[in-house]
Amino acid sequence: MATNITPRTKDYNQWYLDVINAAGMADYSPVRGCMVIKPHGYAVWEGLQRELDARFKATGHVNAYFPLFIPMSFLAKEAKHVEGFAMECAVVTHSGLEPDGKGGLKPKGEIEEPLIVRPTSETIIGHTYAQWVQSWRDLPILVNQWANVVRWEMRTRLFLRTMEFLWQEGHTAHETWEEAEAETRRMLDVYADVAENVLAIPVHRGRKSPAERFAGADDTYCIEAMMQDGKALQAGTSHNLGQNFSKAFDIKFQTRDQKVAHVWTTSWGVSTRLIGALIMTHSDDDGLVLPPKVAPVLAAIVPIYRKDDEKAAVLAYAKELLARLVGADAVARAEAVCGGREILEVPYGSTGQRVVLDLRDGLRPPDKFFHWEQRGVPVRLEVGPKDLANRAVMAVTRTPRSKNVVSADAITPAWFDDALATAQKMLFERAVAFRAAQTRACDDYAAFKSAIEEKPGFYAMHWDGTKETEAKIKEETKATIRCIPLADVIDGADGPISMKTPGTDPVSGKPSEGRVLFARAY
Amino acid sequence: MATNITPRTKDYNQWYLDVINAAGMADYSPVRGCMVIKPHGYAVWEGLQRELDARFKATGHVNAYFPLFIPMSFLAKEAKHVEGFAMECAVVTHSGLEPDGKGGLKPKGEIEEPLIVRPTSETIIGHTYAQWVQSWRDLPILVNQWANVVRWEMRTRLFLRTMEFLWQEGHTAHETWEEAEAETRRMLDVYADVAENVLAIPVHRGRKSPAERFAGADDTYCIEAMMQDGKALQAGTSHNLGQNFSKAFDIKFQTRDQKVAHVWTTSWGVSTRLIGALIMTHSDDDGLVLPPKVAPVLAAIVPIYRKDDEKAAVLAYAKELLARLVGADAVARAEAVCGGREILEVPYGSTGQRVVLDLRDGLRPPDKFFHWEQRGVPVRLEVGPKDLANRAVMAVTRTPRSKNVVSADAITPAWFDDALATAQKMLFERAVAFRAAQTRACDDYAAFKSAIEEKPGFYAMHWDGTKETEAKIKEETKATIRCIPLADVIDGADGPISMKTPGTDPVSGKPSEGRVLFARAY
Repeated sequence: MATNITPRTKDYNQWYLDVINAAGMADYSPVRGCMVIKPHGYAVWEGLQRELDARFKATGHVNAYFPLFIPMSFLAKEAKHVEGFAMECAVVTHSGLEPDGKGGLKPKGEIEEPLIVRPTSETIIGHTYAQWVQSWRDLPILVNQWANVVRWEMRTRLFLRTMEFLWQEGHTAHETWEEAEAETRRMLDVYADVAENVLAIPVHRGRKSPAERFAGADDTYCIEAMMQDGKALQAGTSHNLGQNFSKAFDIKFQTRDQKVAHVWTTSWGVSTRLIGALIMTHSDDDGLVLPPKVAPVLAAIVPIYRKDDEKAAVLAYAKELLARLVGADAVARAEAVCGGREILEVPYGSTGQRVVLDLRDGLRPPDKFFHWEQRGVPVRLEVGPKDLANRAVMAVTRTPRSKNVVSADAITPAWFDDALATAQKMLFERAVAFRAAQTRACDDYAAFKSAIEEKPGFYAMHWDGTKETEAKIKEETKATIRCIPLADVIDGADGPISMKTPGTDPVSGKPSEGRVLFARAY
Repeated sequence: MATNITPRTKDYNQWYLDVINAAGMADYSPVRGCMVIKPHGYAVWEGLQRELDARFKATGHVNAYFPLFIPMSFLAKEAKHVEGFAMECAVVTHSGLEPDGKGGLKPKGEIEEPLIVRPTSETIIGHTYAQWVQSWRDLPILVNQWANVVRWEMRTRLFLRTMEFLWQEGHTAHETWEEAEAETRRMLDVYADVAENVLAIPVHRGRKSPAERFAGADDTYCIEAMMQDGKALQAGTSHNLGQNFSKAFDIKFQTRDQKVAHVWTTSWGVSTRLIGALIMTHSDDDGLVLPPKVAPVLAAIVPIYRKDDEKAAVLAYAKELLARLVGADAVARAEAVCGGREILEVPYGSTGQRVVLDLRDGLRPPDKFFHWEQRGVPVRLEVGPKDLANRAVMAVTRTPRSKNVVSADAITPAWFDDALATAQKMLFERAVAFRAAQTRACDDYAAFKSAIEEKPGFYAMHWDGTKETEAKIKEETKATIRCIPLADVIDGADGPISMKTPGTDPVSGKPSEGRVLFARAY
């Protein structure tokens, strides 16, 4: 029942796919580049949605929904935007099918203007806001959308890069540049908060270089994470769009002093890609590791018995332990639902997260241990006849790796919450330490070229600010400027690195205002 | 500021659009037939999602996500299914755009096999389940998906019929026909529960006639509601798909007795159409009326003052009343978020529903009254200098229509919850009474033909069970069989109507096993 997982050191990419497969997170679908997000993977997304949505609303945003389809002509209205997306759009050209005479079907009913399946919604939302906004009293508009988007990618990878993905896209409109900038930064902070305090993924907040900006933005901010193979991953972006889209779509308003002006807009998004980041940050050769705040299953109770006469007593004891965590009422309600099913799932708290009791007859206990371990369940309680006799239980935690005999009386929600909090904290601290160990200052381009091969990670280098230097480095090393960090100092393997001290670009020899972070990236 | 609403009696269809517009629920978009769901409309959908999702999970279902695109060849695999959907599919044929040489764009990069934008997901999910299921131990699969779907409709109407709509689609697989049938009925009951106890829309649960079945189902169950214009509306469907899709997609499993069999599947769905039903069931000539369980704004507090020296005291008093409902801490948190904005929104409870304090300077109080009334807010508190002097408040409820002076001390969460519960109950009872008044038994076809014109509603008539009779009635009267009700007796204008007593079909003169419900429908 346990699925083999390729070790990270042997084949990192295969390890990633094996972890996803063993955990039942996702599958490729018959449509090239599209994935099926399986229940365990989708439950992680629901956890992430819950945490993000609460923060969006707590910062004054509301949700709305805009059309999946965008008229082809809209895309052309913002010059840089169309450049960025025209080559990777799914285009709808027909509105029906008819028999092709060979037993199959063919498209029928060509439509007048082709429709684009949204790769992102700045254009259709820009058009809509032009109707919504008349006066400064209609501002700010603070709207978020949960949606699917499509970008025709040639090289896809589950969660990290898929043709269709799920995301949220915030789209706001403001009276002034200052307000738009504040919004852009506010949402960057929300993303960093969720990445670090929910997903336990440490991130650098920073600005993108002009070459790496979103197509149509004046400024793109991002959070950048470090994966276990030393590659960086852009985990979220927040764009100050200036007046680019408001001019393209004529979003005008009457100002407080009775003039007419274009609004200032922002957009910001994170996607199911974050689940890829989550997997690559914490998981190990035994499978998925999940921070408790987004783990769909928080604990699995596995009964152990050899003979049939042990079974009833062990199961009763296992249920008693389950009830100690979730309450007897909740157990009774779950039993009524599960009926004949072999895994009893009981909600813990109000988040939809669950504690399960694994009653499957067809599996041996060690296979059950592997099963829950590979799915990233933080806590496992193993309950056998000896435990019953001692009124104890073997408590196994995924983070830290520990096995301890605990008395039944000690199994309380407080004990459980403590174990979960410890795992959450330890995962973040471990990832912070790992990232620092993969981060170095570098002032010599030749040294950088070999270092990026031998010790992949973040390299804090001086940069002259030109796209020529940036392009040369990318061309020669495949490393890109991940961000110009907002922080003055970041931790590296050899101690703190000052980012804002001026210096010299090691490639061009020109002066530099400060260091930026280079890495190879997903 | 108040928007004019056409009275129902003058033009029902225009009334419906006016209510949506005045409430800020939705707009047509530049893409024909696609709508923009505005924040107030989307918040109703979020309420509905919250209530449905909790019930899906409480009945053992989990969420997952399947691709938006379906290979064209999949649709052809189930003969009736392709018949039902081939003529209304959006078809993707290209993967990019290029300049057309005239300053615009044109599709580029024809793809090998066209992709269908899902009109529903039985085919892609059937294909997936064939990979997931090997043994009876893998069953049942109880999965739901929240998604957008596209059906190329020629005649669209906001919420009721749009080219793209949001919905949930449950897809389950079982060992036996009996289990699949039980699941189909269980989810029908969940839908009826949400319709009646959340949306306050009374529904008849029943089976569809073969002619009205879902394309590919063995049996379709539905909930049918009655709108204020006497037209019926199908509010949700639950299908027993038998082995039609498991045979088309080869979903096989090893049975408990070591044989190989095809699984039995079901599917069930409700959509944003329910919001149309909600509007048409409860709203009036003053605008939207919402049952409190899905009202995004539960109460609006409107301060009234003429002179500037009254303003500070009235606002302080209004905030005191707000705090009495939601707690002073919540008010303080909301003030920190809203910053300079003119409507202070404070969460009430944990559902995301809110109480608002309308601080807008640019609007007169009567305009604010209209504003919140048109948006279906159940309770309004009007607070002026006289109220302040008397430590009282004018409490206005939308259902029942009432205005009462209430002492400030009486404004408590208990008082508020009671007002909301009263409105919820009264809306349902009113709709139940209205439906009964629009429901009649009829045993004479000539009488039916004129009655359906003059007194639109449900007509309980005998039916011989043939598609010929059904088609004749549809052709001649535009009325269809809405359902074969599960209930033995339903209430009509002239008392209870026995549905299961045999009789004679008034059209064919052939024997009938019982009455069925005819109506014209949306």
